[in-house]
Amino acid sequence: MSPTTDVLQARFERLRSNKLFELLVISIILMSALLIGAKTYPLPPLVNQLVVILDWGITLFFLVEITIRFMGESDKKRFFRSGWNVFDTLIVVVSLIPIEDSELALIGRLVRIFRVLRMVSIIPELRTLLNSLLAALPQLGYVMLMMFIIFYIYAAVGTTFFADINDTLWGDISVSLLTLFRIMTFEDWTDVMYETMAVYPLSWTYYLSFIFLSAFAFLNMIIGIVVNVLEEEHQRQARAEAQAAGEPNLSDLQGEIRELRALLDVRLPEREQRVA
Amino acid sequence: MSPTTDVLQARFERLRSNKLFELLVISIILMSALLIGAKTYPLPPLVNQLVVILDWGITLFFLVEITIRFMGESDKKRFFRSGWNVFDTLIVVVSLIPIEDSELALIGRLVRIFRVLRMVSIIPELRTLLNSLLAALPQLGYVMLMMFIIFYIYAAVGTTFFADINDTLWGDISVSLLTLFRIMTFEDWTDVMYETMAVYPLSWTYYLSFIFLSAFAFLNMIIGIVVNVLEEEHQRQARAEAQAAGEPNLSDLQGEIRELRALLDVRLPEREQRVA
Amino acid sequence: MSPTTDVLQARFERLRSNKLFELLVISIILMSALLIGAKTYPLPPLVNQLVVILDWGITLFFLVEITIRFMGESDKKRFFRSGWNVFDTLIVVVSLIPIEDSELALIGRLVRIFRVLRMVSIIPELRTLLNSLLAALPQLGYVMLMMFIIFYIYAAVGTTFFADINDTLWGDISVSLLTLFRIMTFEDWTDVMYETMAVYPLSWTYYLSFIFLSAFAFLNMIIGIVVNVLEEEHQRQARAEAQAAGEPNLSDLQGEIRELRALLDVRLPEREQRVA
Amino acid sequence: MSPTTDVLQARFERLRSNKLFELLVISIILMSALLIGAKTYPLPPLVNQLVVILDWGITLFFLVEITIRFMGESDKKRFFRSGWNVFDTLIVVVSLIPIEDSELALIGRLVRIFRVLRMVSIIPELRTLLNSLLAALPQLGYVMLMMFIIFYIYAAVGTTFFADINDTLWGDISVSLLTLFRIMTFEDWTDVMYETMAVYPLSWTYYLSFIFLSAFAFLNMIIGIVVNVLEEEHQRQARAEAQAAGEPNLSDLQGEIRELRALLDVRLPEREQRVA
Repeated sequence: MSPTTDVLQARFERLRSNKLFELLVISIILMSALLIGAKTYPLPPLVNQLVVILDWGITLFFLVEITIRFMGESDKKRFFRSGWNVFDTLIVVVSLIPIEDSELALIGRLVRIFRVLRMVSIIPELRTLLNSLLAALPQLGYVMLMMFIIFYIYAAVGTTFFADINDTLWGDISVSLLTLFRIMTFEDWTDVMYETMAVYPLSWTYYLSFIFLSAFAFLNMIIGIVVNVLEEEHQRQARAEAQAAGEPNLSDLQGEIRELRALLDVRLPEREQRVA
Repeated sequence: MSPTTDVLQARFERLRSNKLFELLVISIILMSALLIGAKTYPLPPLVNQLVVILDWGITLFFLVEITIRFMGESDKKRFFRSGWNVFDTLIVVVSLIPIEDSELALIGRLVRIFRVLRMVSIIPELRTLLNSLLAALPQLGYVMLMMFIIFYIYAAVGTTFFADINDTLWGDISVSLLTLFRIMTFEDWTDVMYETMAVYPLSWTYYLSFIFLSAFAFLNMIIGIVVNVLEEEHQRQARAEAQAAGEPNLSDLQGEIRELRALLDVRLPEREQRVA
Repeated sequence: MSPTTDVLQARFERLRSNKLFELLVISIILMSALLIGAKTYPLPPLVNQLVVILDWGITLFFLVEITIRFMGESDKKRFFRSGWNVFDTLIVVVSLIPIEDSELALIGRLVRIFRVLRMVSIIPELRTLLNSLLAALPQLGYVMLMMFIIFYIYAAVGTTFFADINDTLWGDISVSLLTLFRIMTFEDWTDVMYETMAVYPLSWTYYLSFIFLSAFAFLNMIIGIVVNVLEEEHQRQARAEAQAAGEPNLSDLQGEIRELRALLDVRLPEREQRVA
Repeated sequence: MSPTTDVLQARFERLRSNKLFELLVISIILMSALLIGAKTYPLPPLVNQLVVILDWGITLFFLVEITIRFMGESDKKRFFRSGWNVFDTLIVVVSLIPIEDSELALIGRLVRIFRVLRMVSIIPELRTLLNSLLAALPQLGYVMLMMFIIFYIYAAVGTTFFADINDTLWGDISVSLLTLFRIMTFEDWTDVMYETMAVYPLSWTYYLSFIFLSAFAFLNMIIGIVVNVLEEEHQRQARAEAQAAGEPNLSDLQGEIRELRALLDVRLPEREQRVA
């Protein structure tokens, strides 16, 4: 690299980590969010034109910003290894494509909406929060598999028996799965039940057993998360306490008692020797 | 200040902290609450007149009470530094304004209703409870911001796609936000979903992903509060235990073992010296 | 008391604490519960007569049983000091009154239903459970007062503004309280909201703030209970552990280290003296 | 047993615990689940025939698999002592019966659905999860009994008073129990309440007291589970920590201090003797 690029990169890196620059980016994201909201209201044509201009201004700003961030990165390869950088670049690139087609215009609008997610990529606390949320998911793997098996079996049984009663709710296994999710949220579940009870009077056993099983599995999932969080919190706290106060642990005390004993052994040997 | 004012102030201060006086204030607030309830029923004219008289009596009593509390305060400036005192004074002052206008009469009625909140300002336990509730809020800041971002993006997407299907539910971003809150409470959410599924058969992904995301963020918020409360409780308890029992900690024990060693060092020096 | 009564009392006391007798009582209560259930179905006249006879048989059995329990009590005054005994006696006495009047017949049926509650009075584990449930209530006193204040203020405001819109839901403060409870359970709350939003477009603030406040207070109440239960459990466990393992605590260790030092002080006095 | 059988058994045992074999079984179960789902959609006749053939293939595979597992078991009696083996065998045997009757055909379809449950029997983690779920149930025994007593009494009272108002909801004790469960899930409970309040204006006390009681008992049940899980987790963790770090406990330290003292006693006897 030429020395000029080096100087430029250092300057961009300083700019990138500047607090004021970060605040500017956050307020532009906020403005873009407000624009998205404003566009959902009927606006007079003049304001509409202003919105379009502002929208292009925001796109340009984001382009400049991401260029600065890319330039400021000393190791260019590492830049795209971060998922958030890839996401930011994609959002900006897709916003730049001029679209006329009404089908694609929709995608253009969606991309502008997803710009709000840049808030998460720019505020470190939100990024940490999201990561900790995602980190909790794999631990739930088997409970969620179990829950899916329960749902699947009930959906298959439901379709077998109730498809003829109400095709919209129990027509095939995917609508049955949706109906079961609805029952799990207690949303008008009795209407669904009374309808099938008219044909199969004992079908309440199907609904009640499903509610109990899914509620029980769901409860188990929540307790699993709570216990995990509490445990981690507990360990983190225990480590923090130990480090902060310089508090000795029982092993330290044991060590000191043993040293004391060794000292006694040396300075106060067995009696006969002393007498001698 | 003249000595007379000093004497008066001391007398007011004594009165203010009098238990009987406090009980009197609480029962007047209770009476004012009952009056508010009574006024919502159709009353015979005679009782209605009595209610109006009682109402003025309560206003006057509150005026006297707040004057006593103000007079009893030695540092007059500190009086208005407490939010509760400002609130109490405002309530009393606004109640005093005689209003004829029907628009303003409504405000007069509202102010009389908010008098019930004086219960919180007068009972210390409720004040503590409210403060502890409010103290828990800032810790939730980032989770709530994250939740708002989720809501905002879904509302924008919902308005983009569903505004033409049902203008009342998805017309602009603010009604979409309200609709999403409704979906989050599971209130007739399937009706909303079935309506859009008639046009976009895959729109169930929108609703299910929203329910999972918001439920997950909500769960995270609750767990955050529970962990915080348990942690504080744990620390408070640990401190209480340590103080109550005079229980020594590991550092104390380490200190004592070291003293023992120092003693041995002095009284039982290394062997050669002793032999010498 | 004559010796005969004493002998009788001892015999009754033995009978009362007999396991088989207890099992008999439990099965009679179960039978009485089944009878109550059976009576809700249309029965052929013959079975109906059998039910009436069985019902009188159960009443007589309960009369005999409570007499035995009363006779078996050495201190007759203490018998009625237990709330459960008073409850059992009342249930039996009221069942004995022959009633013809249709109004009173209803009370007779209710009393027969409440006999099922005798299950709680006879099974010690259920009694303990109920007591522990009741013991948790007073700790919630202030949170519940706070919640009632929130409900009362919102009900008063709701009646003031919405009484003209829907008299059935907001007519006076008591129906408003019921409507607010309904909103808190999320039962068709949007129907209530949309109705008032047609007149006051901003009234969603009323509903949302109420839902947030009540949910927050409710959450706080639950966390309060959980923390209390966990704390008690923790203390109970700590005591159990300490007793079971005979594990020494830090104070014990401190005592032993101090004894060691005192020993050293006596047997190994300061140097000069030894040399002397 | 002849040596040939022994050799065969050992070969089957190796096959049974083979990882690849397990993966094969899991994928066949998955395929059988997909088939069940596919059959709920209308299929062209050709695909339908393929599904029937695949179905028989799966049945045969399961028959071979269970035979291998049975052959691989050295102690044949122990094989049927495991509930999961009995379940697997039953599923396979019933699938083999060729059925023409439409009534029995339904059972045949159900049995094919329950094959999905074999997922739980084959994946050890799911089996462990299910066992831990079931192990939590008995601890809840008394709370559930208490809850049932509450439900039963309310159902009996509800039938007594409301049977004439709405026979579908309160006709006999079993439909009343179902209605109460519906009220507990807050599903359109106000509709039920408003209907009876038209006849008995005070009947809201019935509903509110029921909601409070059942919610309170339910809450208690959940807290019971949470406390149990946390406690077990805590004990498991404490044991793990103690074993992992080789951390000495307070008893160890006490022992070492006592040894030190004994040493001092021997090597540093009381003064007079030394002087002597």
